[in-house]
Amino acid sequence: MTESWATFGADLHLDLSAGRGLRAGLVEALREAARSGRLAPGTRLPSSRSFAADLGIARNTVAEAYAELVAEGWLTARQGSGTRVAERARPRRPAAAARVRHPARRRPSYSLQAGTPDLGGFPRAAWLTAARRALTDAPNEAFGYAADARGRVELREALAGYLARARGVCADPERIVLCAGFAHALTLLAGVLRARRVREAAVEGYGLDVHRDLLTRAGLRTRPLAVDASGARTPDLSGESGAVLLTPAHQFPTGVALTPSRRAAAVDWARTTGGLILEDDYDGEFRYDRQSVGALQGLDPDRVVYLGTASKSLAPGLRMGWMVVPPGMLDEVVAMKGPTDWTSSALEQLTLAEFIRSGAYDRHVRGMRLHYRRRRDELVAAVSGRVAVSGLAAGLHAVLDLPAGTQASVLRAAAWQDLALDTLSRYAHPEAGLPEREALVVGYGTPPTSAWSPTLAALVAALP
Amino acid sequence: MTESWATFGADLHLDLSAGRGLRAGLVEALREAARSGRLAPGTRLPSSRSFAADLGIARNTVAEAYAELVAEGWLTARQGSGTRVAERARPRRPAAAARVRHPARRRPSYSLQAGTPDLGGFPRAAWLTAARRALTDAPNEAFGYAADARGRVELREALAGYLARARGVCADPERIVLCAGFAHALTLLAGVLRARRVREAAVEGYGLDVHRDLLTRAGLRTRPLAVDASGARTPDLSGESGAVLLTPAHQFPTGVALTPSRRAAAVDWARTTGGLILEDDYDGEFRYDRQSVGALQGLDPDRVVYLGTASKSLAPGLRMGWMVVPPGMLDEVVAMKGPTDWTSSALEQLTLAEFIRSGAYDRHVRGMRLHYRRRRDELVAAVSGRVAVSGLAAGLHAVLDLPAGTQASVLRAAAWQDLALDTLSRYAHPEAGLPEREALVVGYGTPPTSAWSPTLAALVAALP
Repeated sequence: MTESWATFGADLHLDLSAGRGLRAGLVEALREAARSGRLAPGTRLPSSRSFAADLGIARNTVAEAYAELVAEGWLTARQGSGTRVAERARPRRPAAAARVRHPARRRPSYSLQAGTPDLGGFPRAAWLTAARRALTDAPNEAFGYAADARGRVELREALAGYLARARGVCADPERIVLCAGFAHALTLLAGVLRARRVREAAVEGYGLDVHRDLLTRAGLRTRPLAVDASGARTPDLSGESGAVLLTPAHQFPTGVALTPSRRAAAVDWARTTGGLILEDDYDGEFRYDRQSVGALQGLDPDRVVYLGTASKSLAPGLRMGWMVVPPGMLDEVVAMKGPTDWTSSALEQLTLAEFIRSGAYDRHVRGMRLHYRRRRDELVAAVSGRVAVSGLAAGLHAVLDLPAGTQASVLRAAAWQDLALDTLSRYAHPEAGLPEREALVVGYGTPPTSAWSPTLAALVAALP
Repeated sequence: MTESWATFGADLHLDLSAGRGLRAGLVEALREAARSGRLAPGTRLPSSRSFAADLGIARNTVAEAYAELVAEGWLTARQGSGTRVAERARPRRPAAAARVRHPARRRPSYSLQAGTPDLGGFPRAAWLTAARRALTDAPNEAFGYAADARGRVELREALAGYLARARGVCADPERIVLCAGFAHALTLLAGVLRARRVREAAVEGYGLDVHRDLLTRAGLRTRPLAVDASGARTPDLSGESGAVLLTPAHQFPTGVALTPSRRAAAVDWARTTGGLILEDDYDGEFRYDRQSVGALQGLDPDRVVYLGTASKSLAPGLRMGWMVVPPGMLDEVVAMKGPTDWTSSALEQLTLAEFIRSGAYDRHVRGMRLHYRRRRDELVAAVSGRVAVSGLAAGLHAVLDLPAGTQASVLRAAAWQDLALDTLSRYAHPEAGLPEREALVVGYGTPPTSAWSPTLAALVAALP
């Protein structure tokens, strides 16, 4: 008996010299043996005295390990019956068949899919500097549960100043609500709209399916608005829609700016019907040929929710977004967000606040604007004469209209070169009934610097 | 006319020497004047030529500023009628009455409310070191939209190793899903349960109302389980409940550990009924008198979702939590989380991964364990002989049973000293029908170091 247990002890791969303690090692080895079935349920373990003697360790160490495993339910100890492996400690490793691997999505060699900034441009050093300052200056309470569900006041104040100055937003820190990116903000707003018994939201006929899906998931029907060279056709807004989601500064993905009369029509609709405008200002910072077009929100802060994000100006991986909420809606949005800020890291909020306050945000945006503008110009030069380019005044993407009947072959040629590329129709609302338009949405902001030239070459090679 | 416009220009507080550009300053001043009503709707503006002459600047600058404000909808320009303030540019500052201030919750002078670690213990320097390394090492794609909704694989791998070693969890990085804290995880799980048509979840008769509310909000009825000296009465689990939320390592808030037979009963219930166990391991790291009690999850990883968080071991402000999900449930949880990781900052995930990998997490937990243990011992010494203390073996809080009929006066005395203090009954499920128990839940982890002595003194002074 003694000998077999000594063997068993060795079999446990007990590393009794390990720095982490004899007992811990013993507990782990026994637990693993019970879990794997190497020690069958019902098996009687040696007395702590004899096992300790075999292993050359103190009896107490074994007794404590046994007690711990009894407390966890791996072993049972009964008067007269000794210590045994518990009946329920059967091998319960998940079945191999069920261990499905969830592979990360494969990335193509080249991508011009829109929606992502040049990730290589993330200002690592400047961000770390801001993080250091934020970590040093943070009051202890910042590490606790948020006292204010709207998010840190330091960031709300920094944003209020920035948004008023750079985007013409009528922004009061009291009415800013921080979120984990645009999707989080839209989900909260959809929830508020549903609670207000709104059933339908108008959306632009071209737009992101994930945004439409978020609205649908919250229980809202989406009604497409046609999009033309003046932006979304806001005069067509219906009284049946309780809200409209717009990208006024730079329509996504067609790239046009909403004209003054269309802006006015949206505000008139909101005032007449009591509807709400959700202004998605995703890339308002990046305007090339003239001063940026200010936010629509300033025209009527009582009827417009302004939504901004760091996903285009800095990085989507930060998960940082913000809304400026009309006064009459603030309580509902805050209630929807929950009793505290459950989502966003206070440290990152403080870091972004410091990043804005110190001027690093402005510097970064200026630098990236030049960077993207250069790329835009190179794109235009490379494709000129082959296709018509539009949506160029701003943003990180452009639209390339293709000669009729060539789209399918362009896509095949792109796939052949492992270039990921989206068509304009991929963004069409399924019910929009838009006229057939063969066109590509080219996200020239997406490629890393090292890949930009070959990516552009692959695009040019794929064009008719 | 010219003169009045010169006056007006001055009135705009135009700082024409400002570094940010003449046009930008002019745009901002005019926009603000239109917004505030200082320039009434319909007002005709001077020609760009005369205004430029008045201000002594280039005509083009004024013309461009006008064009920009026309594009934004603040001004209108019509042939023959000149440039006017748009009709809709009425003063639209939110009404003063509607500008409700949402004051941050007032913090009392002293607090022994449970649920928060000592925030002064946050390892700022070590965290910054990890952040620097993470920022330096991060691949560019980390700054993009997450390719994997489960969160960064670096953190999932670091956690899998840590949880297996320190908590006896059967953890595979493939089945770990990162979340923005426990509340986020519980919300996702409640959504999955509802989608599975589960209608009821059992909860411990004493527990956090915010957790019960999250379940209720997701559409689940909660059924209370009685809690006694052996933990939740899992043998009472009903076939009508599709899940049970438990705190096996350290019942919150009574502080008892779930006994082996109660653990076995929970697993048996899950196997018999197909129910799911949600294991809330919120403070499993902090055990004082013996090795920590391992997680229940190891007993049956197919039936237990393990939920962990950095909120007690590091800080709630990080918003970082994780679950280990049974294989048969992984796809549903991932689908519920969304097509990408919409919530958690990749940088913070990478920082925590580095923090764990480098051993800083273990060092921090060891240091805090000593810190809390010292406080616990001081608490026991300070109140000994006056009240009965329980729930001491682990965690950041203890329960003080009061002599019958004294609770109300103790609370009054605490309030008098501005000491925030919760009773045990505050945590009772409204339908639990628990026997009256006059007791305080004392979160001795909560006070900052500087406040600990006066806080303890205030408590002692309030006791009968």
